[in-house]
Order: sequence, then structure tokens, then C-alpha cells
Amino acid sequence: MKAEIITIGDELLNGQVIDTNSAWIARHLGALHIPVVHITSISDKGYAIKNALQQAEERADVIIMTGGLGPTRDDVTKAAVADYFGTTLVRNETVSAHVQEIFHRTGRKHMPAMNIGQADVLANAAVLFNDVGTAPGMAVERSGKYFAFLPGVPFEMKFLMENRVLPMLRNAYKSDVFVYNSYLLTVGIGESHLAEQIADIEDTLPPFITLAYLPRIGMVRLRFTGEGTDMEALTSITNSFKEQVVERIKDHVVSIDNRSFEEVLVQIFTDTGITLSTAESCTGGSISAQITAVPGASRMFQGAAVVYSNQAKMDVLGVLSETLTQYGAVSEPTVKEMAEGARRVFRTDYAIATSGIAGPGGGTETKPVGTVCIAVAGPSETRMQTFHFKNDRAINIERTVVAGLTMLWDILK
Amino acid sequence: MKAEIITIGDELLNGQVIDTNSAWIARHLGALHIPVVHITSISDKGYAIKNALQQAEERADVIIMTGGLGPTRDDVTKAAVADYFGTTLVRNETVSAHVQEIFHRTGRKHMPAMNIGQADVLANAAVLFNDVGTAPGMAVERSGKYFAFLPGVPFEMKFLMENRVLPMLRNAYKSDVFVYNSYLLTVGIGESHLAEQIADIEDTLPPFITLAYLPRIGMVRLRFTGEGTDMEALTSITNSFKEQVVERIKDHVVSIDNRSFEEVLVQIFTDTGITLSTAESCTGGSISAQITAVPGASRMFQGAAVVYSNQAKMDVLGVLSETLTQYGAVSEPTVKEMAEGARRVFRTDYAIATSGIAGPGGGTETKPVGTVCIAVAGPSETRMQTFHFKNDRAINIERTVVAGLTMLWDILK
Repeated sequence: MKAEIITIGDELLNGQVIDTNSAWIARHLGALHIPVVHITSISDKGYAIKNALQQAEERADVIIMTGGLGPTRDDVTKAAVADYFGTTLVRNETVSAHVQEIFHRTGRKHMPAMNIGQADVLANAAVLFNDVGTAPGMAVERSGKYFAFLPGVPFEMKFLMENRVLPMLRNAYKSDVFVYNSYLLTVGIGESHLAEQIADIEDTLPPFITLAYLPRIGMVRLRFTGEGTDMEALTSITNSFKEQVVERIKDHVVSIDNRSFEEVLVQIFTDTGITLSTAESCTGGSISAQITAVPGASRMFQGAAVVYSNQAKMDVLGVLSETLTQYGAVSEPTVKEMAEGARRVFRTDYAIATSGIAGPGGGTETKPVGTVCIAVAGPSETRMQTFHFKNDRAINIERTVVAGLTMLWDILK
Repeated sequence: MKAEIITIGDELLNGQVIDTNSAWIARHLGALHIPVVHITSISDKGYAIKNALQQAEERADVIIMTGGLGPTRDDVTKAAVADYFGTTLVRNETVSAHVQEIFHRTGRKHMPAMNIGQADVLANAAVLFNDVGTAPGMAVERSGKYFAFLPGVPFEMKFLMENRVLPMLRNAYKSDVFVYNSYLLTVGIGESHLAEQIADIEDTLPPFITLAYLPRIGMVRLRFTGEGTDMEALTSITNSFKEQVVERIKDHVVSIDNRSFEEVLVQIFTDTGITLSTAESCTGGSISAQITAVPGASRMFQGAAVVYSNQAKMDVLGVLSETLTQYGAVSEPTVKEMAEGARRVFRTDYAIATSGIAGPGGGTETKPVGTVCIAVAGPSETRMQTFHFKNDRAINIERTVVAGLTMLWDILK
């Protein structure tokens, strides 16, 4: 049982839009032990859609296609798919009433006529009713293969997957080969050093377990993948190898259950009843935004002061004018006062402070672009560190976020 | 002249990692008028790599493959590609010296032996020297087709594209058919209403110009794409249609030059010498992080107060205890005081404030998940608005960011 995902849209091919739908769909099919073997992005042209369907039908059993179901003229998926299956489009009255109801509910008196076309569905398809939008999904089964056609708008696609497609697949397409993935997240060690430290364990992996290294900025995620027919044995063997690795590199292991670094930190704070705030200059609120994106962060996160100007560093956080004059905004004494100021202002147990030159402008001879100072203040000490990153603005900000969280995690240990 | 992108990695197929490389590569090839016709993500298995290369070679003239060039055992691209071309791997001494130098420069005394393998390159390839990492890129030309093999780590891929691949393509692969894209960003109007308002203009588009609707949360981007051999005439005709559309819907047009909403706002503030701050509860610093991701934002953005707790709302922004008691944290009176407090504390001309229930927890009968209040304070007035979003946490945060920026843009008009 294999799946293939096809996403449609010239905006994907010209790079205007990043395809995030495929990863979401793949994760959810993976949870049903239906591995995705191929992801393709194609143009919203009839021939491209038909070619992609034909190749996918040869390779996979479950084919999920997204995009091109909207009301405007550049949306051609339905016509192309009807042609592929040798069928026609028919008006669905339930969908038609729903589309009109949506327009009236949102207080818009007038519905553009083109929206009525959204009620036209493939004659050979089951309609996947879309509660959260005007474009219905459609499902077709042919010769034991299952095709789903979904809108490309992410939250509509997700609604239809969660409420229509996945429940159906869970019942009908049971595989007898299981794929078990188990993850491990490390910080503060590079990919090849990590690989070297665990080489002897990797040597003993049986052929049905593979180990993958997924490096990201400042972190490496390890994925153990086991394949087999006995789910219980598979899980137990795969995890026994993972435990050997955890034991070997335990100082670097942040998470063993596929949670993100932020999720782990939120949990540590919540479990122990301690609180956090941030004082951010070069990260501009990114640490705060990443922490607060975790549900439940409001129990441990009190707030952040994003202080771009020297004036704000003094007014909001009580940084001393002399410190800024003597050492500059990007200095260890300044971030120390910022972190301690955030602890005081937000009344928290811990605080992270950042100040740096993210680029592209602002660098000097002694403090080039990429120079970043970070402080973490806690109840008993404040630690400072200076980093020399060398990349573009977005990467420097991201590296600073990870470095700040890593310093926080270290001080908590 | 057509291009195809192949990204390799099980982490892409199982959804652990979103493929952002393809969009970046596509944008940069598009700038050279080399349209991408196909993007494929495949497994890091030898047969998948060889199959994908064969299909791509049939469809495209330029093939860019990323991923699987690292030092660990799960990286099999080089062996598979050597097999595909019927060639072997040879040790490159320049790369070997570079890899060792990188390890010594970063102060690590010991280099894991597996890194020496990174200096093995395809015997039939030109080496694309990688200044920023240990994995070299490789380029192969065969029967007028160009193949580039690049690391999957985004900043290494970008370095090699910008410094090795794109300069080469710019010289060698000149196309005589130009593709001209021109963009328009709108806020505050839905996709089908927009389409209806400009239907008569769309009717008159010649066959060589297409119009695409790219809806995002709270925004719709329009893309006019013209194809032809006379670049100057093509640009002029395409833009004349775009100007008709801009004139028709001008109240909704934020950007006509492919800049983001944040970039446009930063420019307005910078040009007029005014300043901005934010006071964020439910958005947790996301407005600040998005504004400060724009280079040069430090000239107009003074700071943000992320105030999750009621105590912080009072301490940092001077919100009155009575206001919180009488109306609650999620209320128009509270966000009014937050916005005005931010203007005062950060000494700015304008301030945006947000407070809401992003979910999944925290909803009540009268204020369900998705209830969000936003205020924008300026020199002469403060405007408040209450929104009722209904989605998951991440979407509610994103909708709030766009709604806050839209209110700011409205008050500036």
C-alpha cells in the first residue's frame, strides 16, 4: 500500500508559494502506515494533470491531488480529471445550496455567479462535503485504487483530509506491512560528529531498520525507521536501538518523542511551575513567537520586550545608559542587563536576551554582520555568550533563536 | 528551455521536513526565464534517484537535484548518480584539503574519517566548490542537457546556486522565449469578489497573457504571466492590463511590485519618517517578528511588548486594573489601552495591539476560541475592532497578524 501526492499550481512551480500541503498530508498518511513514495508539483494545465495522474496510478494505490478547484478561470482540475476518467461534470444540489448559504452567512448580499460552478462535481465521484469552504472535494475508486481531489487552500484541504479522506482510508486500506518511525532530537553537536559517536551502534542495525540524519540549523534530528509485519516486535526492536543511541549521546538529547525544542521547553517550565520571559533585539520577537506558538505556553510564558532602539532598552528594561555608551548595544554587559531587566519587569524565573547584527546592513570592523550576544538570566546566575554567525539575515535570526533556547536548556540542566 | 527540480530525502516524503528548496530554486531559475515544469520529491534510495533522473531527462533541459550528499550512510545520491551516468567516483584533492581546513578552522581538533568521503566526486562532473560547507556540488553536461547535484542544506544549496549554477546558466542557456511575471497584492477582498470585479478586463486578455489568483490568509495575490519573444513589448502589454486592474480595485491594492505586505509597510514608515511599536498578547510577538524580518526595519520599528499575563499588561503598558476586571483581557477597551500604552512606552507614532483566544484551550461561552480584539493607535485616533475567527491556533495567529497590519494600513491611508 503506497501513496502519491500531486499538488497543482503554477505558483508552486515558479516558487511564489512553498508547498506545505504535501508534508502535512504525508505525515497523516504515515500515521495510517501508508507511506508516500512520490510527491510531484505540476502546472495547472490539463495535459500536466492527466500525465501526472497516469504516472501516479502506475506507482501508487492512494493518490491525493490538491489544487485547481477554485471558482476562477485558472482552475482547470475538474475538467482535466473528468477527461482522464472519461466522465462528465454534474451539478450537485446539496453543494449548490451550501455555497449560497456560505455567502449569505458571512453577510455578503451578493454571490458572484462563478461560484455556482463550484457545485459541479465529477459524475463518477463521491462528494467530500466541505464545511469550511465553497469548493467540494471528490473521491474516486477505480480498480482498487483510491483518488482524492482536494482544494489547495491549506485549511480546507486539512478539514477534508481529517473528516473525509483519512477516516475512509483508516477503514478500507489496511496494510499488512507496518512502517514504524521513531525520532530523537539533538542540539549542540554536528551531524558527522554525531554519526561518528554512534557508528558502532549503527553497524549493528538489522536490515529492516534504517537510520536517517536530518540536520537543521543548530540541531540534528535522527529518525529510526523499521519496516515489518509484526508491529509490536518492530516497535520494541527499533526502540531498543534508539535507547542505545540516547544513552551514548544523552547530553545532547532534547527530545525522544518527536516534539520540537520549544514544546520540550514549554513542558519543562509547566511541569516545574517556573516562568520565562524574553528581551529581544536582533531576534525581533521570534523567540517569543516560537514559544507562544505552542499550545499552553500562556501558563509559563509571561511576556517579551522587543527593544530595537537604545531608548527602549533603557526605558523598558532599565539598561544603563553608561553600559550602552561604554560597550555598545551588541555586547555581553548589555544583554546581561536586558535579561536581568526582563526577569524583573515580567517577574519571571528565567529570561533570555538577544542583541546582534542580523544584517545585511549595520556591520562594523570590530562587530561584523553575524555578531550576536545572548544572555540567559536565572534565579542564581546569568550566563552570557558571544557568537559569530556569517549568514544572511533570516539564517542569523534563526541561529540566534536556537542558540538562545540551547543556552536556556543548558542552564536548566 | 525547461527545468525540473528533484529533491531527495525520506524526511520530505514522510512530511517531517517541508521542501523549501524547490521554491527558492524555481524563483531563481524563473528570473533567468527558465521555467520549472516539474518538481518531484523522492526517497533516498538508488532506484528512485535513477528513475527520477531518467524521467526528468526526457522532460527538461536543466535538471537540479538536491540532497543526499552528506557524509552519513543514508546519503546515497553520489553512488546512484555515478551508476546512472555509467561513471565512477574519484577523490578530489582540492575538496579534500577544504574539508580538513573547515574542521580545523572551527577549532575542532578531530575530523571524523567519514568526512573524507565528501571529497569523492563523479569522474564526469565539474566540481562546484562549496565555500560554506563540506559537501561539494557537481555539474554534468550531456547531450545539451545540464545536471546540477547540490547539497540539501538550504544555505549550502543557495550558495552553490548563486555562485556556481546560476552564473553558468545565465551565460550558456539563453532562451529565446521570455516569460514575464508581474504581481499585485490585495487585502480585504475575497478571491471570487475580486474576480468578478475585474471579469471584463480578464475577458480582454490576449492568449499569451494568463492571470492567476493566489489566495492566502487575508490576502489575494494576482499574477499576470506573459510569454513571447519580444521582451520589451511583452512587458509593456502585460503591465497595461495590470494597470487597468490596479485602477479598478485600487482601494485593496497593497503592492504592485511583488513586495510583501510587511515590506510595503516598512517602506511607508521609513519614507515618511514615522515609527511603529506593537503590544501583543495572542500573536506572541509574530507581528514584531514579521516586521523585523524585513531588512532596514530597525529605522522605523522601536519595539514590542509581548504581554501574556494581566500583570504584564498593567506593569509594562499601564493597562488599568479596572479595565481588565470590567471588560476582560480580550476586549476592545483593553487593546485600546495596550496600543496607547505601547505608543507611550516606545515613543512611537503608531502602535498595534492584539488580544485574543488563539486556542485550542481558553474559550468561553461569550468569548469562544477565535475571538480576537485588535487596536491601532495613531497620533489622532485609536481604532478598535473585534474579529471572530474559527480555526486552529496557528491560523488564528496568522489571521490576527494580517488583520492588524490591514488596520494599520487603513489608518495610514
